[in-house]
Amino acid sequence: MKAEIISVGTELLLGHVINTNAAEIARMLAEIGVGVYHQTAVGDNEERLARAIRAAMTRPERIELVVLCGGLGPTEDDLTRETTAKVLGLPLVRHDEWWQHLQELFRQRQINRAGAGTAVPAEQLPRNNMRQAMVPRGAELLPNRRGSAPGIYCEHEGLVFVLLPGPPGEMRGLMREEVIPRLVRRAGETGNGVLVSRVLRVTGIGESRAAELLAPLLAGQTNPTIAPLAQPGEMYLRITARAADRAHADDLNAQVARRIYAVLGEAIYGEDDQTLESVIGSILTERGTTLALAESCTGGLVSHRVTNVPGSSRYLAGSIVAYSNEIKQSVLGVPADLIAREGAVSAPVAEAMAAGARSLCGSTVAVAVTGIAGPGGGTDRKPIGLTFIALADASGTECGRFQFLGDREEVKLRASQAALDMLRRHLIEKR
Amino acid sequence: MKAEIISVGTELLLGHVINTNAAEIARMLAEIGVGVYHQTAVGDNEERLARAIRAAMTRPERIELVVLCGGLGPTEDDLTRETTAKVLGLPLVRHDEWWQHLQELFRQRQINRAGAGTAVPAEQLPRNNMRQAMVPRGAELLPNRRGSAPGIYCEHEGLVFVLLPGPPGEMRGLMREEVIPRLVRRAGETGNGVLVSRVLRVTGIGESRAAELLAPLLAGQTNPTIAPLAQPGEMYLRITARAADRAHADDLNAQVARRIYAVLGEAIYGEDDQTLESVIGSILTERGTTLALAESCTGGLVSHRVTNVPGSSRYLAGSIVAYSNEIKQSVLGVPADLIAREGAVSAPVAEAMAAGARSLCGSTVAVAVTGIAGPGGGTDRKPIGLTFIALADASGTECGRFQFLGDREEVKLRASQAALDMLRRHLIEKR
Repeated sequence: MKAEIISVGTELLLGHVINTNAAEIARMLAEIGVGVYHQTAVGDNEERLARAIRAAMTRPERIELVVLCGGLGPTEDDLTRETTAKVLGLPLVRHDEWWQHLQELFRQRQINRAGAGTAVPAEQLPRNNMRQAMVPRGAELLPNRRGSAPGIYCEHEGLVFVLLPGPPGEMRGLMREEVIPRLVRRAGETGNGVLVSRVLRVTGIGESRAAELLAPLLAGQTNPTIAPLAQPGEMYLRITARAADRAHADDLNAQVARRIYAVLGEAIYGEDDQTLESVIGSILTERGTTLALAESCTGGLVSHRVTNVPGSSRYLAGSIVAYSNEIKQSVLGVPADLIAREGAVSAPVAEAMAAGARSLCGSTVAVAVTGIAGPGGGTDRKPIGLTFIALADASGTECGRFQFLGDREEVKLRASQAALDMLRRHLIEKR
Repeated sequence: MKAEIISVGTELLLGHVINTNAAEIARMLAEIGVGVYHQTAVGDNEERLARAIRAAMTRPERIELVVLCGGLGPTEDDLTRETTAKVLGLPLVRHDEWWQHLQELFRQRQINRAGAGTAVPAEQLPRNNMRQAMVPRGAELLPNRRGSAPGIYCEHEGLVFVLLPGPPGEMRGLMREEVIPRLVRRAGETGNGVLVSRVLRVTGIGESRAAELLAPLLAGQTNPTIAPLAQPGEMYLRITARAADRAHADDLNAQVARRIYAVLGEAIYGEDDQTLESVIGSILTERGTTLALAESCTGGLVSHRVTNVPGSSRYLAGSIVAYSNEIKQSVLGVPADLIAREGAVSAPVAEAMAAGARSLCGSTVAVAVTGIAGPGGGTDRKPIGLTFIALADASGTECGRFQFLGDREEVKLRASQAALDMLRRHLIEKR
């Protein structure tokens, strides 16, 4: 299946927004064997958008899937829905269920604005919002759980049109939950081969070290291919097999994955959509272990990541962001003379913070982070990026020393990654 | 001047690389008054690239500048130089100076590889690299100080063609040092002006409500234009003026900005690169006010955002992620019977959390968040997304009730946004 992605939005043409959506859509399509042949970006201009759609429909390589992203919002310059319908010669009809859903959303907002318990006048949904319940006749509406603009899926004269809202979270959700399953089903019906990817997620080992270890494997790759992708604090290895069907592709991927596991071992923390925090969450839940956190330089990021996992309230007892020395002393019980003697960024203070958080929250295990995120605060002896991460459990405390590179946000991210990985490796050892 | 950007590279179509170059080139062009009307990405395929160039040359809006980025490297699949020359019907001729420069680069690499002082055989520069010294007849070579692929600047039948290498640093350097000066000189000769943008950042008001309030302003816009862009929990309004010079454009923007400020007032929290947390940080720093946080459903995200601002250790006293009822009681001092009577997600508990955090950390002001982030935990009376945000200072506590939409991470994001905005508005009132 050949595809074209048309991104809609003047903000893209002005360069105010980087077109991450096109890359993400392309990646998701590649994973199911759909090749993207063109990416186009046009502004919020009906005539140019119509021409872009027509160009996609008449390319010599015969595009079979056109994905339009952006321009489904409620404002006057959101034209994708109307323009697509016009080019296809389809009238727009109202989708009653979404229409009622929009009215309910609007009423709820009115109540929020007025305050609970106040009488709310039966105000009309603004006319512009009504457009978000309109779909080209014969098209499917793709319900958007994250916003008011639904997606649209439309097969028309052998071409598939997919319309997606521009906010990345909404686009991603609709692609994953609505579009990809439809395209996979369709591919199965038309007998094309499949492209199946499997992602191994690696942390706690440098990229060049991993590349060195994997060199013999990476050299001979053809099918499956192995693509390493470095991210701050971790690395993904994407294994992609092409085969007649899913089962054969899975089998090819499994053979390569086994060889990579043999080389990288427990540096592989998870696969596909797993995150370090979700892997940790599963282990903690399974064992009934509870967790407390004490964060200085990460400033709440470790807690934020842990609580991104649904159900984390079952194991996260609590977390203290102890930015000041006073809080380290008064809340976590770190002795004032220890801080005076060793400095707030030191192994003994990190261990005292972990022990303090564990006892304050009454948890099985606790992790503490203290470091220098920058841009200020660094010295020759304690440079920016220096971080101590400690772990406390019933048997005592342990501490690691790290030197992270990057700006403030990157140091925070890498420190949170190292803290979570220390916890993960500790939990695995105890298994 | 109207422009089109053509990005060349199969890695873009596969989504392996995000097209940051197109956005950056667009931004640099917009700053000198060149409007980008189309962005296209094609793979390393001669036929499709040739068609993309021809399409740019024949658009009804009469594109005057075509920027091609990528595909100037030394490998077989780098086709931009040859394909452009072919489409324009120009032969490629050797640029002697760059030819010698390439040979010198090559010799240097051979020496480096062999080790200093070793005799180096007079090896030929590989044939593929020679291509990097070829330019279409009549075109200018733009010397690249950062790599072996030079840029190319070519005026042909009233159209300007610019060819740039794909590595962002090389592209950026050539744009800044070679391309922009040429385009500015050319614009001066043809009497074109500049395009200047200013971004107002808005929060605490829905997109459709803002659109309603701004309708009269948005309707009549021509110069400057006003473009709204919705993001989770906030909205950007981009004002863009075209004028003969920067000062006049700034002045036009200021007139419109004044009218928008008159309508949206303090819903505008900042401009351009400011964030809600950086704006709050400036106010807190300026006044010597200190802050404490108590987070339940946001799980540390508010603290993480506050501590992303350099220097936040000056005003963030501390923060408690009180996920469990036990921590709400034992650390923040929320009465157990209050939680039993009202539920953990309630206004009285939010207020008690704020007061507790303030007294625990000894701060001037404290903000507390409690809500249901989902996907579990919702009921009819207390649905997913229901959130209470409270603020405590010396004069007492106040609380707001919110109903947020979206998945877990989005509810957390919107709740953190509302919490920071409540703090901002409180600080402004006290001014």
